Amino acid sequence: MDHRTRRGGNPPFEEVAVNGLLDRRALLGRGIAIAGAAATGVGVSLTGAAAEPLKDEPWSLMQGAATPALQTPSRFEKHVVRTLSNPNNELRNSHARTPHHLLNGTITPSSLHFTINHSGLPDIDPEKHRLVLHGLVREPKIFSLEDLARYPMVTRMSFVECGGNSAPMFSNEPVQGNAQALHGLVSNSEWTGVMLSTLLEEVGVDPKAKWFLAEGGDSLALHRSVPLKKGLDDAMIALYQNGERIMPGNGYPMRLLLPGYEGNMNVKFVRRIKLLEEPAMSFYETRTYSPILPGGKAYRFYFLQEVKSFITHPSFGQSLKGPGYYEVSGIAYSGTGRIAKVMVSADGGKSWGQAALQGPVHPQAFTRFRMPWRWDGQPVVLQSRAWDEAGNVQPTCQEFVAMRGQTKEPVRSPLAFPNQPYNSITSWGIDNKGEIKHVYA
Amino acid sequence: MDHRTRRGGNPPFEEVAVNGLLDRRALLGRGIAIAGAAATGVGVSLTGAAAEPLKDEPWSLMQGAATPALQTPSRFEKHVVRTLSNPNNELRNSHARTPHHLLNGTITPSSLHFTINHSGLPDIDPEKHRLVLHGLVREPKIFSLEDLARYPMVTRMSFVECGGNSAPMFSNEPVQGNAQALHGLVSNSEWTGVMLSTLLEEVGVDPKAKWFLAEGGDSLALHRSVPLKKGLDDAMIALYQNGERIMPGNGYPMRLLLPGYEGNMNVKFVRRIKLLEEPAMSFYETRTYSPILPGGKAYRFYFLQEVKSFITHPSFGQSLKGPGYYEVSGIAYSGTGRIAKVMVSADGGKSWGQAALQGPVHPQAFTRFRMPWRWDGQPVVLQSRAWDEAGNVQPTCQEFVAMRGQTKEPVRSPLAFPNQPYNSITSWGIDNKGEIKHVYA
Repeated sequence: MDHRTRRGGNPPFEEVAVNGLLDRRALLGRGIAIAGAAATGVGVSLTGAAAEPLKDEPWSLMQGAATPALQTPSRFEKHVVRTLSNPNNELRNSHARTPHHLLNGTITPSSLHFTINHSGLPDIDPEKHRLVLHGLVREPKIFSLEDLARYPMVTRMSFVECGGNSAPMFSNEPVQGNAQALHGLVSNSEWTGVMLSTLLEEVGVDPKAKWFLAEGGDSLALHRSVPLKKGLDDAMIALYQNGERIMPGNGYPMRLLLPGYEGNMNVKFVRRIKLLEEPAMSFYETRTYSPILPGGKAYRFYFLQEVKSFITHPSFGQSLKGPGYYEVSGIAYSGTGRIAKVMVSADGGKSWGQAALQGPVHPQAFTRFRMPWRWDGQPVVLQSRAWDEAGNVQPTCQEFVAMRGQTKEPVRSPLAFPNQPYNSITSWGIDNKGEIKHVYA
Repeated sequence: MDHRTRRGGNPPFEEVAVNGLLDRRALLGRGIAIAGAAATGVGVSLTGAAAEPLKDEPWSLMQGAATPALQTPSRFEKHVVRTLSNPNNELRNSHARTPHHLLNGTITPSSLHFTINHSGLPDIDPEKHRLVLHGLVREPKIFSLEDLARYPMVTRMSFVECGGNSAPMFSNEPVQGNAQALHGLVSNSEWTGVMLSTLLEEVGVDPKAKWFLAEGGDSLALHRSVPLKKGLDDAMIALYQNGERIMPGNGYPMRLLLPGYEGNMNVKFVRRIKLLEEPAMSFYETRTYSPILPGGKAYRFYFLQEVKSFITHPSFGQSLKGPGYYEVSGIAYSGTGRIAKVMVSADGGKSWGQAALQGPVHPQAFTRFRMPWRWDGQPVVLQSRAWDEAGNVQPTCQEFVAMRGQTKEPVRSPLAFPNQPYNSITSWGIDNKGEIKHVYA
């Protein structure tokens, strides 16, 4: 029986799983009866309907600051930054991680989009940058940025995730880090550019071509082989990120976007697309990002970023201010397509309630999920688990360890494990003081 | 007969309107045959399939720059800024306009979101800021930012447009300005926050209440009356803009968002919502933004930003580099709901072809439209015209002037006209050199 047609019983704020998880329909429509007849206990009641207790703060009493040509966040948001693995720009790769625990919605602001660069940020003059399409084509061509701007463009949401994101979770003891430290190598943007299929049509694909090698203009000339099928499907030469030109760390002035595929393949500063019969077996497709399984075998090619989710609110680094109503929310995504369902547990995976998905749900993009929750002040373990439209489900920690191992197992390559794809459930343990830890459950 | 089922005739790159406008279905699917059997003439052909003519530019030969905690655009994008009406922060209002002619996609980067502030940018401490809901309510309450973070949130796209956007087009001679100068007081973001209806449920609405007065924490204490119906519908107390905290110029740490309603009503720095029986008749709802009609009458209340569109590519300030294929694209939106259709003309409105809409189409949000076009090098006048899902259509220039007048007519108030809503068609005249002017057609 549909609860919505039932009168007098089972209101939408009933518990749907143990430890206070409420029916997600409490979030729908107007007049959200989040706590039923009782008040939520949030906010301070004022005595008397005419009460106007606001005192004028200093900013309400004087002329404010000048308007800048480019807005920047408030000085009170200085902690909202990416964390850096190589701030002194030593001759090695540099990671910058997105602070998911401080964001909400689905878009990652471009200033906070994660980046990994292997030889620093190239300072590319867009007027001099060129893209060549060659190899097994009818008519090789070279394109300037101005040339590309004349072609039909497409706009779409897409996440990009490093193949090594969440790798700290390979540890056999839970690393005490926030969502930024654990999962900060994934971000989500609106990308606009020219479909690679449009350009391939323009140069004419030789039927012998089965792969292409994409090469960047950075001094590493980072290059990866990609199946031509992906190039003819949804691959894009992206020129804009969240409405403006791509950020320097994300591939300015143009990058290859392969929705749902390992970040490293989405070649930045792309300057060359060469059509080939076979993969080029380049450094990054042979040395690393090739998951080694506990049995000793490895995937030869492993491109998809699998279905994943994690809770950002509440999460490590935050704390709960006493019992009462809270919203549990987080991010879900899958390289395979759209997110179909997210379930949330407050008892470490024993009982589950279905979360609301913020629509519209885009394929290969962040989907924000939300779950109403009434905390009784007792210890709980919060988890989220996502399903995608193809029926893939995010593995439990135990399932994942059985498939892919942990770092306390014999390590076949000390360099390999930190760059393995990891997509199991994240668990936040909340104690009776409202403090939050990363736990395995 | 549906062209898609026809074999051997009428390919999708046929002309659908005079002066080279092509069938929008040329943009759909893979393998876009944008110029039929002939090449587009875009890009430079290379001789020999093995040609690899790229020379290594300086940035490909050395270690790049360090990764910053917050990314900023390339130094080659320094021209992509807002234009300022009051850079020295004199004691009057300050406008900052969005450079639509330099952006693509649908999102306005937060750094480039338009702002109008009447007494500078207040430097608000989010820990001290409070929101009060009072007046005709059962239980008045005061909320901190931390309190609000516990309520169910919603994420949605929405444009915000100043009631006076596009006012230069009231001139009886076309002002020679770009899309930023003419239409820069509208922007589009992903907003996340708490529905006002949720908070109204929490404080309990007195049945006598029909309006609410929203007041900001800036030193002007900007305040506007809003029908309670809107407050119970889609009004939001927005806390996040494009994933991060709201920008200082857009209302940090919280603003009222009234999707589709006049920008000025979307009260920034909102600190008070007072429920009332009647509108408060405050300064901005009585002195200005109350359109005066040619007959001398005025609307008493005029909230909706009506259906509108304009072409951003190509547009004033850009130029065409010779005949051949181009994409015509622009922005459409309506305060009433979703955009249903955009038509494009290349002959000043005599013939029209239907543009492709970039999906998903959100209500009260920017919709990017795209139209394939083959320019023959002759003078043309490009126009776009939008329809919304309620059947409202963007007026022609002549229709609009007949309804609302022009500045060469007797001006009833020298202050009134520049703040009137304006939504007619914009025309870009392109001469045989590819130079672009603003024209009336």
